[in-house]
Amino acid sequence: METLDPPDWTALRALGHRMVDDMIDYVAGVRDQPAWQAVPDEVAAFFQEPAPQEGAGLEAAYADFQRYVLPYPLGNLHPRFWAWYVGSGSMGGALAEFLAAALNPNVGNGSHAAVLVERQVIDWLKAAIGFPAEASGLLVGGGSMANVIGLAVARFAGAPFDVRAEGLTGAPQRLLVYASSEVHSCMQKAVELLGLGNRSLRRIPVLPDYRIDLAALAAAIAEDRQAGALPICVVGSAGTVNTGAIDDLPALADLCAREKLWLHVDGAIGAVAVLAPGVRGFLAGIERADSVALDLHKWLHVPYEAGCVLVRDGEVHRRAFTLTPPYLAPETRGVAGTDFWFGDYGPQLSRGFLALKAWMSIKEHGLARFGRLMDQNVAQAHDLARLIAAEPRLELMAPVVLDIVCFRHCVEGADDAVHNAINREILLRLQERGIAIPSSTVLRGQFCIRVAISNHRSRDEDFRALVAAVLAIGEEVEHLGNRNMLL
Amino acid sequence: METLDPPDWTALRALGHRMVDDMIDYVAGVRDQPAWQAVPDEVAAFFQEPAPQEGAGLEAAYADFQRYVLPYPLGNLHPRFWAWYVGSGSMGGALAEFLAAALNPNVGNGSHAAVLVERQVIDWLKAAIGFPAEASGLLVGGGSMANVIGLAVARFAGAPFDVRAEGLTGAPQRLLVYASSEVHSCMQKAVELLGLGNRSLRRIPVLPDYRIDLAALAAAIAEDRQAGALPICVVGSAGTVNTGAIDDLPALADLCAREKLWLHVDGAIGAVAVLAPGVRGFLAGIERADSVALDLHKWLHVPYEAGCVLVRDGEVHRRAFTLTPPYLAPETRGVAGTDFWFGDYGPQLSRGFLALKAWMSIKEHGLARFGRLMDQNVAQAHDLARLIAAEPRLELMAPVVLDIVCFRHCVEGADDAVHNAINREILLRLQERGIAIPSSTVLRGQFCIRVAISNHRSRDEDFRALVAAVLAIGEEVEHLGNRNMLL
Repeated sequence: METLDPPDWTALRALGHRMVDDMIDYVAGVRDQPAWQAVPDEVAAFFQEPAPQEGAGLEAAYADFQRYVLPYPLGNLHPRFWAWYVGSGSMGGALAEFLAAALNPNVGNGSHAAVLVERQVIDWLKAAIGFPAEASGLLVGGGSMANVIGLAVARFAGAPFDVRAEGLTGAPQRLLVYASSEVHSCMQKAVELLGLGNRSLRRIPVLPDYRIDLAALAAAIAEDRQAGALPICVVGSAGTVNTGAIDDLPALADLCAREKLWLHVDGAIGAVAVLAPGVRGFLAGIERADSVALDLHKWLHVPYEAGCVLVRDGEVHRRAFTLTPPYLAPETRGVAGTDFWFGDYGPQLSRGFLALKAWMSIKEHGLARFGRLMDQNVAQAHDLARLIAAEPRLELMAPVVLDIVCFRHCVEGADDAVHNAINREILLRLQERGIAIPSSTVLRGQFCIRVAISNHRSRDEDFRALVAAVLAIGEEVEHLGNRNMLL
Repeated sequence: METLDPPDWTALRALGHRMVDDMIDYVAGVRDQPAWQAVPDEVAAFFQEPAPQEGAGLEAAYADFQRYVLPYPLGNLHPRFWAWYVGSGSMGGALAEFLAAALNPNVGNGSHAAVLVERQVIDWLKAAIGFPAEASGLLVGGGSMANVIGLAVARFAGAPFDVRAEGLTGAPQRLLVYASSEVHSCMQKAVELLGLGNRSLRRIPVLPDYRIDLAALAAAIAEDRQAGALPICVVGSAGTVNTGAIDDLPALADLCAREKLWLHVDGAIGAVAVLAPGVRGFLAGIERADSVALDLHKWLHVPYEAGCVLVRDGEVHRRAFTLTPPYLAPETRGVAGTDFWFGDYGPQLSRGFLALKAWMSIKEHGLARFGRLMDQNVAQAHDLARLIAAEPRLELMAPVVLDIVCFRHCVEGADDAVHNAINREILLRLQERGIAIPSSTVLRGQFCIRVAISNHRSRDEDFRALVAAVLAIGEEVEHLGNRNMLL
């Protein structure tokens, strides 16, 4: 009888210890490593090899990991990684993920403790957001899927026909979803996936502070109704990806109550900041949403993947997804003896034990510490903004609300094209030299260096280092820009 | 400056070693544990506690895991767990998951080694299935999402209009998807999610061997076209969930070529058995599919979650999902310096390092071992079928093709209602006593005990124990059935 279990566990035990030690050494020393380095061609070539027919054992597989994978990370464990919007992880979370994978439950169904762990994590998140006890939730791979599910429930609740049975073909009216022009691109992907189509996502202009223009929103809804369409949902952003702007949630909630629309809040970036004393005031009104998407692998630093969708009316959520074929029939006793099946709340049936790393992280650190760390990042963002404001050659490109700072290096008399080229080059050199890893965005046609500080390892000195490096590289490249060598 | 990192790593190191040892002890001794036990009320009550504001440390969190989670598993590590269709995991896979979580990359985008690991795993799976080099793939949470993506690409390719922009509202024709009546329920969820609606999923009857009736399929397509609808896709099942039946894939491929339809194969259960010398013949034709959904966390025993979708035409796949907002602009250098972004191939942007556990498992064991283990499970299923056939009181309820066996205990002169009640009671007692964990299904109105042997720890003796227990419990309960006490 063959099995994947080893005949003797001794060697595996020692190897497991070594992996723990090595990864702790790695994380403990990450500040002294380059923030990022390119994968060399010979390493890339290694990943072209066909699959081995015969196994080389775990020790050899681990050696490959150490040699070919570990030295070429994305960089997000590093104290000076501030690209996109990525969490830093934690060793406690990684060990919890090991426990989850070793126990290896399918958390889609069945009567077992892992289901209760996930229900508890969801209860904790409901309480943090201010949702009622009858609200439901589901852990998912990330904010994108959380937004898909939130919109799917909104579609189910808002369609004046049985959308699960009929679909959208033949619908008498186009169902419309509203969001600001700063909404994350995953919302477009969501309406596309759901068969609503990108045309059904109305982008409403933003004010100078990048928050949705409420008057324009109200006017668009009225106009669309006049034209015979059916508005069903408004998406509020609680932390836009470009600048961290938070839409006026109380005003959106009022509008949705008045207009009888579903309010979905994309809080992938900012919703967990309800835990942060310095930020939660900006998020007031989120508790009035019909659904909220949030991410635990970003600002809570739970290892990837861990997102969550919460739905105020748990019964509507369930009815939007429930389906019970004979081979999944619940029982009153035994392993199927539960009337609560997570598979009834989303598209996935098989589901991993995503909850354990969140559950253990919250028990390890407590909610208050996560709140303090978010406040710390916001303070760092404001400090960075002040450093930028104090430098004549640097320009702050958007107001700082959360932990996102957009700025650029300026050259007197240069037009936007030159500025864009210079700042792109500064960013690439920062990255290639492993100094720091911001990313970029474009605001009103202007290329910005974008620093998103969802990083529990960043220290104040790291931002001073960033500013110094930008100024130094700026000096290197600005004459290139003037001579159009970068265009 | 606060951080989630400990001030001193020594204690964490020791705790990590202890977790490795404890989980190895647990798995090494799992055969001597009950296959399942119910969560007691006082344990369930523990999971009602609110989130702690202050952290108790990882050691305390781990103590909670040991006391409240570990003793009440789903049971799928146990040698006699055969419910639904669940993998058994492996300790090597769990350790790889620790490495992935410790490194914690976001594999949605960027230039780093984790992306190359996933591309290599996808290349290996493409080669195993027989897909060409230009095929694409994506690791996802499981078969359900793999099927959603496969159908989304089919919808994109088959719609005679821009479905991403327009959605389905106002479509001149209903787009239709065909599958057998034995298709997994996730396919209904997929057409619902995609806005096609359950009405767009045509269920075609099956033959007595539970494979799709090809004549009925061809007739339905012709009839639907006649009625003005637009057939776009046929879903073949490579291993149905009820009985493991594999549709006639070469015939489906011929039909789809003739009718110009997208052939999607749901191989969540059986597709990886292309690695098994004894099974791969039954899967011939899968290499002609346009897309294939498969699962690594089932019969390959990679820890949850790990599914995969493969698409023959990688460019169509990309075009069905690609979207590049300014804040995700690729560069030619630096951390965004790659033109290959996994976020372009599915709904998720942030994505975990699911690939590492698959990559390391395949390196550890080699493809051939996985193939042998699958053949071993199929042989066990046939052996179990023979044991059942040899017992006058037991009845085999469906042909055995793969590793799924449906049977029931019979009582002379009893009708279906009594048989159903008796067999449900036998199943529940098997589970409650922790003897073995089959699940159930209903075939042609008859309740079956269903044994799905995707388990690398099962030994031949375990199936003899199952048969003996069913006969013994059958004797206990059959007089209850005769007196209608179970109805």
